[in-house]
Amino acid sequence: MPTDLDDDDDTPLHCATGKTRLHVEADLAANADIMLEKDQTHYLLNVLRMGTGDRVLLFNGRDGEWVAEIVETAKKSCRLHVSERTRPHMELPDIWLLFAPVKKARLDFIAQKATEMGAGLIQPVITRRTIVSRVKDARLQANVIEAAEQCGLVAVPQVREAEKLDAILDRWTEQAPGRRILFCDEGAAPGGALAILEGLAKEGGRGQSFALLVGPEGGFDEGERARLHARKDTVALSLGPRIMRADTAAIAALAAVQLVLGDW
Amino acid sequence: MPTDLDDDDDTPLHCATGKTRLHVEADLAANADIMLEKDQTHYLLNVLRMGTGDRVLLFNGRDGEWVAEIVETAKKSCRLHVSERTRPHMELPDIWLLFAPVKKARLDFIAQKATEMGAGLIQPVITRRTIVSRVKDARLQANVIEAAEQCGLVAVPQVREAEKLDAILDRWTEQAPGRRILFCDEGAAPGGALAILEGLAKEGGRGQSFALLVGPEGGFDEGERARLHARKDTVALSLGPRIMRADTAAIAALAAVQLVLGDW
Repeated sequence: MPTDLDDDDDTPLHCATGKTRLHVEADLAANADIMLEKDQTHYLLNVLRMGTGDRVLLFNGRDGEWVAEIVETAKKSCRLHVSERTRPHMELPDIWLLFAPVKKARLDFIAQKATEMGAGLIQPVITRRTIVSRVKDARLQANVIEAAEQCGLVAVPQVREAEKLDAILDRWTEQAPGRRILFCDEGAAPGGALAILEGLAKEGGRGQSFALLVGPEGGFDEGERARLHARKDTVALSLGPRIMRADTAAIAALAAVQLVLGDW
Repeated sequence: MPTDLDDDDDTPLHCATGKTRLHVEADLAANADIMLEKDQTHYLLNVLRMGTGDRVLLFNGRDGEWVAEIVETAKKSCRLHVSERTRPHMELPDIWLLFAPVKKARLDFIAQKATEMGAGLIQPVITRRTIVSRVKDARLQANVIEAAEQCGLVAVPQVREAEKLDAILDRWTEQAPGRRILFCDEGAAPGGALAILEGLAKEGGRGQSFALLVGPEGGFDEGERARLHARKDTVALSLGPRIMRADTAAIAALAAVQLVLGDW
């Protein structure tokens, strides 16, 4: 559902099926009845001027995508009747994107692009040089849902609350056992990223689990770099000889990882 | 120089040297005197409150990066004296990005990100399903320059005017002899992109020249796809099983190409 987060671009989407897609929390199955809450009701009835008999596509990130028909409308809610499944559920690649948050538009951008590109989990990470100290989790979640709705995803990446890098690393071995951390290291020599990613692909195939970690403008500080390099479950990656903004680096790194270790 | 194109994000850059960087047209060499025009003068003197004796970095896309000192100021111009070179010129990878333009913010975004990621040439391409019919070349150029200034580039990608895909293909063999067109094909089966890119890398090494071609929301139409597939100098690429917005696809594809065929 387009929110106020949306930009001024009303270009129809690449992925548009021509049908409106809504993310819902409820379970989806044939003959289920789904009640929409106020905002989604407003969007369907007032913004899109839909009414009884009109059809939309629903997904919840678990049950695939389903056709549903508006069967009853009220001022602040409406009831949809679910009929048939249009697409089965499809898991996202098990690739996490951990990134130092940046401000406003660029943070929205990372959430939207990472969703489109198939990240399985998205988490802001507060590093020592991170300037943004508060991340609105609801806004991050809204961006992820909106991107999933617009781009025809049936799965939705998990969104985790922002956390300090040191705290994440303290508990990594217990919380994400076996998951390798690929961190974008400004100090790494350019030119080796492909070979490193391919080495990882050969080691364990695409069944391995990875977390990509991208620092803030200014990079990780020396203490953070030392701590990351000292771990056995980390791999340093260079993204070439030019310096990118943090949001560009996050998306570029995710593309590289999806190409070699994901499902592209 | 930040323009009105800039978003609300004043986060210091990853790449910031701590010094202001300006792109100029003039030749740069030791002891050269450079006159800045009105907008750049306003930016230095009024926005940044600089004055005589302050130093900035200059680059023109040809001569590397140089330190220059403000030696004389007037209301609408100022004179800089160039002293020493801080970085040599560095060529960009010979990778072109041809993309179907999208609206406003997303077009700015493609220009900025493609510059940061090291595209050598950027050109909007009008395909049959392209909805945006006019592209402001000056705005595209301004975005490219701004990204180059902010991200410490010494080279600046060439910006070409928007042109119709058919016209570009009609003259391709003469205008870009030997340059392969990698086009993002929604009809291609996912999973083969890495092998295809690596095949190209093995064929001719990184010295080959490529143009990446990314279609609009809705993809290339069947006639365009047929024409692209029929050429001997084209290669179809899939960007995985999820559908991305056109701007996301452009950046993701550029990352993939830079990783395997460029200088990452």
